[in-house]
Amino acid sequence: MTHPLFEKHQATLEGAVAAIASRAYWSAYPEMPSPKAYGENAAEEGKKAFEAHLGKAFELGQPGQSGWLGGEKSPYGIALDVQYPVCDPEALIAAGQAAMKGWQALGADGRTGICLEILDRLNKQSFELAHAVMMTTGQGWMMAFQAGAPHAQDRGLEAVAYAWREQRFVPADTVWEKPQGKNPPLVMKKHFEIVGRGIGLVIGCGTFPTWNTYPGLFAALATGNPVIVKPHSNAILPAAITVRTIRAVLAENGIDPNLVSLCVTDKRATTKGLATHPAVKSIDFTGGNVFGQWLIDNCRQAQVYAELAGVNNIVIDSTNAYKAMLGNLAFTLSLYSGQMCTTSQAIFVPAGGIETEDGPKSYDEVCADLAKAVERFLSKPEVAHAVLGAIQSADTLERINLANSGELGKVVLASSKLDNPDFPGAEVRTPVLIACDVADEKLYMEERFGPISFIVKVADTAAAIALSERVVSTHGALTTGIYSTKQDVIDAMTEATWRSKVALSINLTGGVFVNQSAAYSDYHGTGGNPAANASYADSAFVANRFRVVQRRYHV
Amino acid sequence: MTHPLFEKHQATLEGAVAAIASRAYWSAYPEMPSPKAYGENAAEEGKKAFEAHLGKAFELGQPGQSGWLGGEKSPYGIALDVQYPVCDPEALIAAGQAAMKGWQALGADGRTGICLEILDRLNKQSFELAHAVMMTTGQGWMMAFQAGAPHAQDRGLEAVAYAWREQRFVPADTVWEKPQGKNPPLVMKKHFEIVGRGIGLVIGCGTFPTWNTYPGLFAALATGNPVIVKPHSNAILPAAITVRTIRAVLAENGIDPNLVSLCVTDKRATTKGLATHPAVKSIDFTGGNVFGQWLIDNCRQAQVYAELAGVNNIVIDSTNAYKAMLGNLAFTLSLYSGQMCTTSQAIFVPAGGIETEDGPKSYDEVCADLAKAVERFLSKPEVAHAVLGAIQSADTLERINLANSGELGKVVLASSKLDNPDFPGAEVRTPVLIACDVADEKLYMEERFGPISFIVKVADTAAAIALSERVVSTHGALTTGIYSTKQDVIDAMTEATWRSKVALSINLTGGVFVNQSAAYSDYHGTGGNPAANASYADSAFVANRFRVVQRRYHV
Repeated sequence: MTHPLFEKHQATLEGAVAAIASRAYWSAYPEMPSPKAYGENAAEEGKKAFEAHLGKAFELGQPGQSGWLGGEKSPYGIALDVQYPVCDPEALIAAGQAAMKGWQALGADGRTGICLEILDRLNKQSFELAHAVMMTTGQGWMMAFQAGAPHAQDRGLEAVAYAWREQRFVPADTVWEKPQGKNPPLVMKKHFEIVGRGIGLVIGCGTFPTWNTYPGLFAALATGNPVIVKPHSNAILPAAITVRTIRAVLAENGIDPNLVSLCVTDKRATTKGLATHPAVKSIDFTGGNVFGQWLIDNCRQAQVYAELAGVNNIVIDSTNAYKAMLGNLAFTLSLYSGQMCTTSQAIFVPAGGIETEDGPKSYDEVCADLAKAVERFLSKPEVAHAVLGAIQSADTLERINLANSGELGKVVLASSKLDNPDFPGAEVRTPVLIACDVADEKLYMEERFGPISFIVKVADTAAAIALSERVVSTHGALTTGIYSTKQDVIDAMTEATWRSKVALSINLTGGVFVNQSAAYSDYHGTGGNPAANASYADSAFVANRFRVVQRRYHV
Repeated sequence: MTHPLFEKHQATLEGAVAAIASRAYWSAYPEMPSPKAYGENAAEEGKKAFEAHLGKAFELGQPGQSGWLGGEKSPYGIALDVQYPVCDPEALIAAGQAAMKGWQALGADGRTGICLEILDRLNKQSFELAHAVMMTTGQGWMMAFQAGAPHAQDRGLEAVAYAWREQRFVPADTVWEKPQGKNPPLVMKKHFEIVGRGIGLVIGCGTFPTWNTYPGLFAALATGNPVIVKPHSNAILPAAITVRTIRAVLAENGIDPNLVSLCVTDKRATTKGLATHPAVKSIDFTGGNVFGQWLIDNCRQAQVYAELAGVNNIVIDSTNAYKAMLGNLAFTLSLYSGQMCTTSQAIFVPAGGIETEDGPKSYDEVCADLAKAVERFLSKPEVAHAVLGAIQSADTLERINLANSGELGKVVLASSKLDNPDFPGAEVRTPVLIACDVADEKLYMEERFGPISFIVKVADTAAAIALSERVVSTHGALTTGIYSTKQDVIDAMTEATWRSKVALSINLTGGVFVNQSAAYSDYHGTGGNPAANASYADSAFVANRFRVVQRRYHV
């Protein structure tokens, strides 16, 4: 007998499983914040729900609470003043472990049904979540809505679909009957129990507090594990709303809500203690290399799924759509002020220039034309603010200043500060473009998170492809791109990406951008280069989060 | 268009995929060494083929050869004197990497077809392989045939089936068409290339040189990786025969045979250098904790799949088939002189004795009766030699002597040396049984590989179950067992194994033994306790051995 919530959401699950199999376009959650999709009053109610959190204590009813902690600073400059419960990690772990037995007993179908109900409920909160994401991360509204709500929910559902596909492949039981020639067969009954590994810790980042949290959260949860969400200290609210909804759905369905909890702390030592706790068996992390590598090196008791820094890059060899190419790149470099782990940082251009449908363009012309394209794209303030959002961290502001100073190479386009009339306190910056020589590896060959890109002068296309491969292999990347009119060049770049194991976008000139990754179709990260040791999502992302414990006896 | 070898073996593949889905009984390779299954002359030809290797140099035609190395000592005391090529590991790595491109280009179907052809060819060599396994490991003939040939081939096929299931789920390409309201849809063509991670290193053990090698070997190979097999220094021949056959099948099918090579060395430093080489991306290891943990700690560039030591244990609470229980245990303790990673080492018996269909039996009676059952089972020399085989290593002989001395506890049954008339040089030993108290943890709570078992006096059944859980959680185990007539006791033990993550055999009294694990049905290891971080076989065993590299463009 299956679970009522499994039956309720079975069509959604089947859609997701079919989508990950075909990798064609599909989505369970409408990406347009329209009344048609979300209801006439959804926008207003969502905004009110968000505003109702401000200046308040965010109750979660978790065990071991010793106080309250807040301190999120909105990149838009508005006051947030939300206080979150501070709970003893040992209490959260013990409570999570205690809740695990009932969660295991539910079986894969029941867990999947409840996860789907949670996602459905989160989807209904999309406006509330979008405001929370926007105001904590500095994303523009449309991006905060899409990436923060439906796209994040799609990534969560994708993980649930992979988890369900692996779990359902394990039969609950079997009769094993081995022929013995003329003697009676050996007959055994065998049972196969799916058990989670133990506490899953999900450590969020400051820029995508839902999109980068939901895959690990739902992968761990669906496979039978308790989950502790440790949000970034400046993007707690989206995680807190998520955890509250999860706890509510669990409780409604007779599951101990302490299966999922929020761990808020301003002490790195607390996070480290939690991450190295023997009960923590998986860690999903998105963030910088230093702490990510610390987790990989020190949390040997856990499976660590880490998305770290990288140096995304694009090779420009030639194009027959020069203007469209520049427009496409301008959007990529501007979106959320380049504060995406998928934004291109290094653009490799041959020293001898490139061929276009308008004739040859020198390296300097490409630099100047890309600068102009970015300026043109951001010339209307309303477009600029919608696309750029605000700068999420002081570190990024510093990096922009450094790049503007000329210390990182010749400034082809300086970053400028814009005033957002709706949010006078917002730190808004346009992208900075720097021209540099291929020899200046120290400039462009480390991640400089934010709207900072390098147009690197490379000997020729072959050298650019070889450089791209080396950068990806040694420093990692989530995305690469190539622009070329020549199939042999595209083939050479393709083979380079097979060796360096990175996704490739070819000749993007339309409404798809190298920094965008669509759930169910685009693998986010390959898990095969230093930028990430896992992918959203594939079988490897879920298959080792549970184990199968068998028992057998004669019948 | 699919590969001819994929079509040739498709029925076998489908059988294996159906078997891992149902986990019912299935086998591709006949386990009886009968003329009916293998041909009238197979036994004789296989023996001749084995004998033809003796005293010779085993040519493989590998690159970088600098000399020859042998030195295997047969536990049966016969002269082997086979010399194997010693090759520069850098040359093997470079040649493997060079061969990878053509292997990748073949795609999952082609690779699967060739792997199935290899297994079919190995199956035809089953007698040759069985003699090689018997004479290098000391296994008895029937076990060497079954575990060394068809059962090992089944485990290899099982890995291929899992690998194929995961790879075929990744579509080669898709058209992604995203609606844009009234505007034309966004349409992209996407390709998804399966690429292996890189060199797979498979480090074999001295007791099961094929059974424990084939899962990792075929999992890595099927998923697109070159493989270097590093056999145990005393069990090279079975691996060498395997590698030669693989290389022949590869060459016949237009694949560079250097995709798979044999690395023979008597220097631990060479193995360590190979294991930590940046090009080595996966390591499959079976063996002791010290080197296994060294690999896990030091080979951070690779995925390490390790089967290490453990303390397998059985709880006896009660039985309604006392004699059959003792007979079943006697077989388990005797088979291959307990030199199996699945042999029970600790048997937990309540201090107050157990209930049986013949009335209560005291702890001392259980000890005495089990000793008698082992003696009775081994009373006929021809049975004893067939079951016991010979002791594989001097270390195991030393451990037996230590146990016999009484230093590890009261000797309930002493190990005795038997003379094998067919092999006067064989070191044959019967099992030693020791009685000890639960408090003497240092005696029974570390692996003492070989025919050494402890009957541990425990307060009561509940304490025994709790102890079993603690032993498995802290020291690991591949197998546990329980004998009880009470469902609540079986349930308590079952729940304990869910927490400690170990396979459980319940009331085995017939022709299935706790130390036996059947491909396609029994998971060998859960991957969830210290005895093994992976399982033969499940999705997690294969899914992270390849990555998917995508490319996309507008259409």
